[in-house]
Amino acid sequence: MTTSSTAPSVSSVAAYAAPAANAPLEKISVPRRPVGEHDVLIEIKYAGICHSDIHQVRDGWGEGIYPMVPGHEIAGVVTETGPGVSKYAVGDRVGVGCFVDSCRECEACLAGQEQHCAKGMTGTYNALDKNGEPTYGGYSTHLVVDENYAVRIPDGLSLDVAAPLLCAGITLYSPLNHWKAGPGKKVAILGLGGLGHMGVKIAHALGAEVTVLSQTLSKKEDGLKLGADHFYATSDPKTFEELAGSFDLIVSTVSAPLDMDAYLALLKVGGAFVNVGAPEEPNSLNMFSLIGGNKTLAGSMIGGIAETQEMLDFCARHGLGAEIELIAADRINEAYERVLASDVRYRFVIDAATI
Amino acid sequence: MTTSSTAPSVSSVAAYAAPAANAPLEKISVPRRPVGEHDVLIEIKYAGICHSDIHQVRDGWGEGIYPMVPGHEIAGVVTETGPGVSKYAVGDRVGVGCFVDSCRECEACLAGQEQHCAKGMTGTYNALDKNGEPTYGGYSTHLVVDENYAVRIPDGLSLDVAAPLLCAGITLYSPLNHWKAGPGKKVAILGLGGLGHMGVKIAHALGAEVTVLSQTLSKKEDGLKLGADHFYATSDPKTFEELAGSFDLIVSTVSAPLDMDAYLALLKVGGAFVNVGAPEEPNSLNMFSLIGGNKTLAGSMIGGIAETQEMLDFCARHGLGAEIELIAADRINEAYERVLASDVRYRFVIDAATI
Repeated sequence: MTTSSTAPSVSSVAAYAAPAANAPLEKISVPRRPVGEHDVLIEIKYAGICHSDIHQVRDGWGEGIYPMVPGHEIAGVVTETGPGVSKYAVGDRVGVGCFVDSCRECEACLAGQEQHCAKGMTGTYNALDKNGEPTYGGYSTHLVVDENYAVRIPDGLSLDVAAPLLCAGITLYSPLNHWKAGPGKKVAILGLGGLGHMGVKIAHALGAEVTVLSQTLSKKEDGLKLGADHFYATSDPKTFEELAGSFDLIVSTVSAPLDMDAYLALLKVGGAFVNVGAPEEPNSLNMFSLIGGNKTLAGSMIGGIAETQEMLDFCARHGLGAEIELIAADRINEAYERVLASDVRYRFVIDAATI
Repeated sequence: MTTSSTAPSVSSVAAYAAPAANAPLEKISVPRRPVGEHDVLIEIKYAGICHSDIHQVRDGWGEGIYPMVPGHEIAGVVTETGPGVSKYAVGDRVGVGCFVDSCRECEACLAGQEQHCAKGMTGTYNALDKNGEPTYGGYSTHLVVDENYAVRIPDGLSLDVAAPLLCAGITLYSPLNHWKAGPGKKVAILGLGGLGHMGVKIAHALGAEVTVLSQTLSKKEDGLKLGADHFYATSDPKTFEELAGSFDLIVSTVSAPLDMDAYLALLKVGGAFVNVGAPEEPNSLNMFSLIGGNKTLAGSMIGGIAETQEMLDFCARHGLGAEIELIAADRINEAYERVLASDVRYRFVIDAATI
């Protein structure tokens, strides 16, 4: 089933990169390592544009490595396999998410939580791999990755709408799964962007009663179509009166500072508010907002490899893909501006054939 | 098994009360209602002094009702039962904790979380009952309470060391139970006072590996005797380096502001920090302290009636009572000063025979 390879098939590939912090992305060539014992070579078909790509290109999260090829929502097809590869064969449809390696021996890695590896996961881009070489992401034609850090995209999912699941999908699936969204549970999704729209779809498919909390009602029609049962504007103070004590679970995709005490008041006794987005500045919180009602404030960061596979299988079973706007690679810079202006419904996906 | 009664047996009882905010406590008489259909009359034997008694007497939690008879850690013996009482008989050893009534029909009440009653629990003191009459607490000789808001004190537990379990015991048992302290789990108890010392005993009895985090090492010997495996001073910055990523669960009994981000860094991936004490001022929190490591910050407030009974049964099975200093009622004011100076190991208990 596998095709072995001893020599590198691709050493230099086309990609879109930011040559320096805040610089527009442009087409360049980047090296890909030879296909090793346990590697697969992936011909990338589609790559989603995640808000965090823009953060990193613009150096919002500290020291960036340039040139930087963003992209961690990657869907493609295996075109070559290393001799030790057992999970995938040439022609298999696979995805790669936010990381491409981890230590594989710490408590978190052994528990399938590679994203929380004690030694730090190796990011799909803007990171250094075990050999100290920079990693380059999915805005590119090809990628070489260890088979254990790729996931299978089930047949029922088109690759274009599957790509965003590798970050946006798992980021919402993991907390909804962990905090037990399901029948009889009232779940709110705070923010209806790239992350939030997947939250609505997944929470609905899990059987929960879903409410969207959005700044205004401008996306109400969309939210209901995506599977929400209710839609409220957080800019309206009445929302907070009406919904007090309503939710078992709120998942927040918002990265602006929030009045946490006001949002915690929307939870039922024993409810949980989970942040997957977060402001960089510290938040103020009155601990009595948690004590009264035995409430929980939690964080969640993407998900491990096994859970990402579980999410893809779940999405395929329920026919869930992202709502996307497909673009050619030469429109990446324009797309970035539109993402920053919240002018996308709901995810830009780059057609890698145009790179 | 029950003795019925149609007329009130006790209408006015001796008690220690604060006549006004911040005033010293003095002996007075307070009314107790007639023993109703479902009531039991309890001859109080012991009442613990909880830090929150002092808070409330000194009006730290808003508008106090005076004269105020504090006390919500009550152990005694049933001396009379209403005609409809089925759970208790004269001579039974019973306890009363922080509340004496609730609506009994909201989601929280039906789930056995009466402390989070949607209409508000009726506090054992400093509250108004359903008839608008003020409630008076356990610093008194007798108490009339609905049988459904009393719990049985198992034979193996002495009433004096059982009294503090009604607040301090359940306050620690509930989060340790909910967040699954047990074999293979590393649990830290933050603060070794009246609450914390019960946390150490209960967490140890649950089978967890227990660490005390105390401001200094002054109580180290005590902590180890109570069942802790390790003892660290939070005033030593090395503690935070050495214990980074160590705990599955931290239960904080501290009501001073904390550097939450520093404490959250002590949790393992997926770990929980639960507040049972809390500062009145808002805390600062960086949400990334929760997202990195899928961590949880939660609150927990006492426990429901069923869980309080479960806790007492657990404590009896494991021979766990509070460490107490028994005092006569005329030393309450002095005891308050000593509590405020953290000069008690670990709970003052009033001998009600001296009231």
